[in-house]
Amino acid sequence: MEGISGEACSLAGHWGLGKLIALYDDNHISIDGSTDIAFTEDVCKRFEAYGWHVQQVADGNTDLAGIAKAIEAAKAVTDKPSLIKITTTIGYGSPNKANTAGVHGAALGPEEVKLTRENLGWPYEPFVVPEEVLNHFRKAVERGAGYESEWNQTWATYRQKYPEEAAEFERLLRGELPADWDANLPSYTPEDKAMATRKHSEICLNAIAPKLPELIGGSADLTHSNLTELKCSGDFQKGQYQNRNIHFGVREHGMAAICNGIALHNSGLIPYCATFLVFADYLRPALRLSALSQAGVIYVMTHDSIALGEDGPTHQPVETLASLRAIPNLLVIRPADGNETSGAYQVAIQRRKQPTLLALTRQNVPNLAGSSAANVAKGAYTLVDCQGTPDLILIGTGSEVSLCVKAAEVLAANGKKVRVVSMPSWELFEEQSPEYKASVLPTGVKRLAVEAATSFGWCRYADATVSIERFGASAPGNVCMEKFGFTVDNVVAKANALLG
Amino acid sequence: MEGISGEACSLAGHWGLGKLIALYDDNHISIDGSTDIAFTEDVCKRFEAYGWHVQQVADGNTDLAGIAKAIEAAKAVTDKPSLIKITTTIGYGSPNKANTAGVHGAALGPEEVKLTRENLGWPYEPFVVPEEVLNHFRKAVERGAGYESEWNQTWATYRQKYPEEAAEFERLLRGELPADWDANLPSYTPEDKAMATRKHSEICLNAIAPKLPELIGGSADLTHSNLTELKCSGDFQKGQYQNRNIHFGVREHGMAAICNGIALHNSGLIPYCATFLVFADYLRPALRLSALSQAGVIYVMTHDSIALGEDGPTHQPVETLASLRAIPNLLVIRPADGNETSGAYQVAIQRRKQPTLLALTRQNVPNLAGSSAANVAKGAYTLVDCQGTPDLILIGTGSEVSLCVKAAEVLAANGKKVRVVSMPSWELFEEQSPEYKASVLPTGVKRLAVEAATSFGWCRYADATVSIERFGASAPGNVCMEKFGFTVDNVVAKANALLG
Repeated sequence: MEGISGEACSLAGHWGLGKLIALYDDNHISIDGSTDIAFTEDVCKRFEAYGWHVQQVADGNTDLAGIAKAIEAAKAVTDKPSLIKITTTIGYGSPNKANTAGVHGAALGPEEVKLTRENLGWPYEPFVVPEEVLNHFRKAVERGAGYESEWNQTWATYRQKYPEEAAEFERLLRGELPADWDANLPSYTPEDKAMATRKHSEICLNAIAPKLPELIGGSADLTHSNLTELKCSGDFQKGQYQNRNIHFGVREHGMAAICNGIALHNSGLIPYCATFLVFADYLRPALRLSALSQAGVIYVMTHDSIALGEDGPTHQPVETLASLRAIPNLLVIRPADGNETSGAYQVAIQRRKQPTLLALTRQNVPNLAGSSAANVAKGAYTLVDCQGTPDLILIGTGSEVSLCVKAAEVLAANGKKVRVVSMPSWELFEEQSPEYKASVLPTGVKRLAVEAATSFGWCRYADATVSIERFGASAPGNVCMEKFGFTVDNVVAKANALLG
Repeated sequence: MEGISGEACSLAGHWGLGKLIALYDDNHISIDGSTDIAFTEDVCKRFEAYGWHVQQVADGNTDLAGIAKAIEAAKAVTDKPSLIKITTTIGYGSPNKANTAGVHGAALGPEEVKLTRENLGWPYEPFVVPEEVLNHFRKAVERGAGYESEWNQTWATYRQKYPEEAAEFERLLRGELPADWDANLPSYTPEDKAMATRKHSEICLNAIAPKLPELIGGSADLTHSNLTELKCSGDFQKGQYQNRNIHFGVREHGMAAICNGIALHNSGLIPYCATFLVFADYLRPALRLSALSQAGVIYVMTHDSIALGEDGPTHQPVETLASLRAIPNLLVIRPADGNETSGAYQVAIQRRKQPTLLALTRQNVPNLAGSSAANVAKGAYTLVDCQGTPDLILIGTGSEVSLCVKAAEVLAANGKKVRVVSMPSWELFEEQSPEYKASVLPTGVKRLAVEAATSFGWCRYADATVSIERFGASAPGNVCMEKFGFTVDNVVAKANALLG
């Protein structure tokens, strides 16, 4: 019923995933009772429409041979995924609860278990494994040992024949990165031209992709907006499974779930996926599972503020950063420029037990004096400092760091002692020692945070904010930024107000 | 491609919505280029599988008569929704951009517009409306006037024949509530037995439903967990459209989107929908649109904390409340007991330009001395006070308010002056006057917030929290609560630590 199944299964059909066999236990019961009250579509026909090979087993309660036969037939179809619809009775054998929602979410209970055993002619005590069953499973284990030894043989031959490829494969299985994987990540000086951090992200992806064959991913129909194409590879398509650019279509939820699958498969693959930041909502259930399941998926989320402009409030994230920072075990990084984007990728690629979400600008941002890739790993650092104890600390993230730098210059010209802290990641900052944290954000110094998003949560670090407490608006990006107060004048005014 | 279309269209087929006609502009282009790179399913077959009536128009560029004929045929089918797949060329007529993604998200530009006009033989200047077109639209307007006068005639007759029903219908169109709509909302005293707030919610829904025929809704396959059934009505099903209990199936996203449609239809209907609180993620894109579009949908979200127990971290909201409070124009209410649940419904039903989300417990909570339905509208209020200026304010929400009351008793017995504030809604509290806010939460008094959720955002109101900074765990609900520190002892310890 869930839409995500439609997204993922349509892609499975498109890709012709012949090794995928789904057994659909069609027992006609969900929590509310018979599925007839909400679900009367023709599922087999729908899966045929997706391009699947579809079979039905009419009596899944007793026709085990029929199920086995259908699985064999599904294996024989190698250019399409297979659905086997198996009609069963939920709670089969229970005299009083079979075919009811009562057995969907609750246990039968001791009395009904007893009646069911009697009804099915099962004479054994609980936890007794009859000889016949034991033998059956022992045979399966023996068969497995045979398969394993066969595989080991094959692998040994392969290893001898292709030592380089074998070493790479083994590296992947160990989850190790090659020593020089990040050697080509670029660094920048203020003389380098202003670029969008999404563009820096594209450069990073293409700097590491040739050294990391395990990097695979793509966008939900926004490839040339998210800038996520790997130039060193073709498109992952039916029959072209060696390629690494995945076109997910407009299917954000399916995209993130597929990336979870790739990350948790223990094959060493590093999946990334992409859409606009505001559409994080569309994949949020799978993103939560990335965090909960420790899946090292990299979320490349561009167009990260009202500065994206004309598309208006439906496309402009405002509450999105806060809602993401609230998720346990999710790393959110909003880099300020080219160096910080390189630093963000250094962190994201190395964190294999944690998803990382990159919030990237659509618009150009300058390369900042003092910005640092290495400091991204610390979450926050002093970008511009003053002599002695500051009167005020301006904390910026992403595209607002350069605004903080300019405002600090004006404030300094007016005799204020101002420090600028760039804070690409709250979560990474929280990992630091209390000493480091106090060195960047000493207590007793007033702090003003500047971020083109809601202030929700910022009270943890700041006494006041330049922020947005409503949905955005449709206008050119620079007009939006100005109208919402992301100007040097307004930051200076807010700073002076805070200083009293 | 998006899963939500599958959810909604499967329901439309199930319900046999014969008045729904969808024109599918099949131009084979999405932002990334040809849809062939990600979308090769048989859409017509999929919609047939959903139970739709399906037609195709092969040449939507020029065959206008074919489109008109298909629409007439679709109208004639009254027991099924209709899909008309119309194959077109995107940017039809443009010599250089037709049939490319270049015309999906960008304008043609003046030069290409000129070429397109020439190519299509359109001799008029921009913004000139030729006589023929003007006449065509004038005829349509005249036809519309005829239809309107016909309708007014019908309505006048109906009004005369059924004055009571007509008055009710006109009330709905005016968006007014009947004077005594909330007369049967219950109130409670501490002597009344402890109940889950989801149970209180069920009582509220059934207390107002007979007086509010416009109340319509249901659950995403959790009816008997969310407790959202209206006893005064049957199930909304094919041919039984007079009924008000909707079974959405396991389709949270489609459910919320359908409720947005109902709320924005200006028919006066008040939609509600329901699932577990943690699954707010699954409908979040539609919930954001409720807030952005000012749709007065009521979200009945039960099982609102780790106290739900065994289902474990996949089902236990931790970051969910924070992520919802961050959304502009969304009202989040977490009532503490029966009175506050009645108060929550009073607010939710009356707010027709704003969605309201109710966070409700699975577990029983006591009815509190001093709790008040009316005070819910203030967002926060003093539930238990001390003599003079408090040393400490304990702020609780929902199921943790009773814990605060007990902890306050222990602290008071140890000579501390403690106030307990029940804070069912941050957003409603923020609407109050500065004087009221200062009277409930005076500055200079230490505050400890207690909520079985992340502390994210609580720094706005509290100096410290008893909260959860990780995903939950699978154990009986009371064990979870104890292990995560939601005990009188721990609250008292944290309070004493805060008081130094």
